[in-house]
Amino acid sequence: MMKIAVDAMGGDNAPKAIVEGVMLAKKDFPDIEFQLYGKEAEIKKYVTDENNVRIIHTDEKINSDDEPVKAIRRKKQASMVLAAQAVKNGEADAIFSAGNTGALLAAGLFIVGRIKGIERPGLMSTLPVMGKDGGFDMLDLGANADNKPEHLLQYGILGSFYAKQVRGIDNPRVGLLNNGTEETKGSELTKKAFELLKGEATINFIGNVEARELLNGAADVVVTDGFTGNAVLKTIEGTALNMMALLKESILAEGFKGKMGALLLKDGLRNLKNEMDYAKYGGAVLFGLKAPVIKTHGATGPEAVSYTIRQIHTMLKSDIVPQLVAQFDAREEKKAN
Amino acid sequence: MMKIAVDAMGGDNAPKAIVEGVMLAKKDFPDIEFQLYGKEAEIKKYVTDENNVRIIHTDEKINSDDEPVKAIRRKKQASMVLAAQAVKNGEADAIFSAGNTGALLAAGLFIVGRIKGIERPGLMSTLPVMGKDGGFDMLDLGANADNKPEHLLQYGILGSFYAKQVRGIDNPRVGLLNNGTEETKGSELTKKAFELLKGEATINFIGNVEARELLNGAADVVVTDGFTGNAVLKTIEGTALNMMALLKESILAEGFKGKMGALLLKDGLRNLKNEMDYAKYGGAVLFGLKAPVIKTHGATGPEAVSYTIRQIHTMLKSDIVPQLVAQFDAREEKKAN
Repeated sequence: MMKIAVDAMGGDNAPKAIVEGVMLAKKDFPDIEFQLYGKEAEIKKYVTDENNVRIIHTDEKINSDDEPVKAIRRKKQASMVLAAQAVKNGEADAIFSAGNTGALLAAGLFIVGRIKGIERPGLMSTLPVMGKDGGFDMLDLGANADNKPEHLLQYGILGSFYAKQVRGIDNPRVGLLNNGTEETKGSELTKKAFELLKGEATINFIGNVEARELLNGAADVVVTDGFTGNAVLKTIEGTALNMMALLKESILAEGFKGKMGALLLKDGLRNLKNEMDYAKYGGAVLFGLKAPVIKTHGATGPEAVSYTIRQIHTMLKSDIVPQLVAQFDAREEKKAN
Repeated sequence: MMKIAVDAMGGDNAPKAIVEGVMLAKKDFPDIEFQLYGKEAEIKKYVTDENNVRIIHTDEKINSDDEPVKAIRRKKQASMVLAAQAVKNGEADAIFSAGNTGALLAAGLFIVGRIKGIERPGLMSTLPVMGKDGGFDMLDLGANADNKPEHLLQYGILGSFYAKQVRGIDNPRVGLLNNGTEETKGSELTKKAFELLKGEATINFIGNVEARELLNGAADVVVTDGFTGNAVLKTIEGTALNMMALLKESILAEGFKGKMGALLLKDGLRNLKNEMDYAKYGGAVLFGLKAPVIKTHGATGPEAVSYTIRQIHTMLKSDIVPQLVAQFDAREEKKAN
C-alpha cells in the first residue's frame, strides 16, 4: 500500500477541490492510502468514500502570503508541516500540496531532506510540446535564484531519470537552455555546464537548445538555472494568457460575425486551450529530495488534483527516488576515491 | 540634413526589401540622405527616386553564418563595415542593417564605439503591450551573455531616455525583471541591481516586475541581463508562433465548419497578429554607442524597413545620443570627484 500525505488545506479552493480530487483518484488507485491533513469537519464534507482515507485533524495552516521559512518553523501544527513530518517519519511515502510554493520548498528541504549528493533540488514540470502528444521536462523552474554548473549537471541526471521512469521515454534527449545552439555560445554558467553535461556518460546530452524551440519539442528534458527557468515559464504563461484574452476580445469586437465565427471555431479554440494546459501531466516536482514532494497550482480543480495523484503513483511505483539515491551514492563514492 | 548609412546587402531579402523600404520612407522624410552600401547594379534596380540617395558600391558583404568578430576584422570592404566606418568618420549619423546580428554588434562596438562611461551597450527593442496602444522597451535582449549590476543600472537610464525622447512617455516607469515582485526577491545580480536602480534619482524606478506581466504593460522600460532577456524574447516569439500555428491547424482539422469559422474570424485573427507584430515600433537598437546602430529582422519586408527609418529619424531629431553623452560625461566627472 502506497501512502500519500495530502495537505488538504493548501490552495485557493481547499479543502473542497483537494478532497474532491482525492475522491476522483481513489477510483483508479485502490492501492493508495490517503492521509488528509487539515480541519476534519471541513474535509469530511467532501469525503464520499472513507475507504483508505485517514483524516489527521489540525486547526493550523500556512497561508499563501506567509513568509515561507518562518511559516515552516513557527507553524509546527500546520497541515503542510504535519504532512511533511509524516514523510520524514516514514508514515507516508510522498507529500502533495496546492498551497504556498515557497513554504512547500522549505518543508521539502528542511523536513523531508535532500538526497545525499544533490546540492540544490530543482523544481520540475512537464510542459507541453504543442501539436504533438507528450511534453518536455524542464528544471529548475525557480526553486533557486542562483545555480552553479554542477547543479545543472544534476538537473540533467534527475530530469533524464524522470523522463525515462515516469514518462516512459527511451533514451531521453537532454538539452541545455542557452542563447544559441552553437557549442561556443553562452554565459559563464552555461559554458561550464555544457562541458559537464557533455562529459556525463549516463545521459543523452544533445547540446544547446534555444527558448524559441522549447514548445516544438527540441528536447525531452531541458536544463536551466532557476532564475532563467522561472522567467521562461512565466513568459510562456503570460504570452498564452494574453493571446487567448486578445482573441476573445477580437471576437467580441467583431459583433455578430465574430460570435458566429467563434461558435464555429469553438472546438478549435478548446483544442488550443487543452494543448496549452499542462496540468494533465501532473504537478511540479521538487526534485532531488528523499521522497516525492509535489506542488500543484493554487487555483487547481479536482481533475488536476487527480492527475497529480496519478503522477505520484507512477513515481512511487517506478521506485525513482530509491534509484536516484543509489545513483548519487555511487557518484559520491566515486568522488571520494 | 540627416544622413543614414544603410547596409543594403544585409538580410534574407536584400537588397530588394531594403531599398524598397528606403523608397517608402523617402516620401515621409525629405530631410534624410540615404547612403546605400552594396552592389550598385543590384541596388539600382529598386531605386525609383534618386533624390537624396547615394549608392556606395562594394562587392563584399557579411553573410548570416559568418563568425561575427572575424567577419568585421577581415571583410574590410563589406557593406556593413563600410557603413559603420561612415558613421565613425562623421559622414553618416546612424547605421541600419538587417544582416548578421553578431557582426552588427561587433561593428557597433569596435567601429562606431561606446559612449564614454557605458560599459556594456545593450540590445533594446520596443515590445508590444497587448490589447493597448504603445509598448515597452526591454534591454538587454542579448548583446551580452553576462552582466553586472552596474550594467543593469545603465540600461535603466538608457531605456528611460529612449521611452521619454523617442516614444514620448512622460516619466517612464522603469521595472527590473525579477522572479518575484517583493523587494527581497532575486538572484545575487538582481538584488544588487535593485539597490542601484532604487538609488538612481534620474529615473522613475517602480521595482520588480515578473515575466508573466510584461505583455500587460507592467512597466514602460524593463531592465534585465542579456541572457535572461534573450530567453524571454525568444520564449514570447516561440509561444506566439506555436499558438498561431496550432490555431490554424485546429481550424483546418475542423474541415468546413472550421473554415467557415475562420473566415468569419479573419479580422479578429489579423488583429491578433498585428498586436503581436512589434516591427511597427522599428528595429532593435544597440544602445549605448556614439550613434544609433539599428538592427531589423533578417526576414524583414519593405514596410518594416520604413518603420525603422522613422525610428532612426526620431532618434536623430530628438538628439538622444548627444544628450546621453552629456549625461554620462557628467556621471563620470562626479565619480572622479
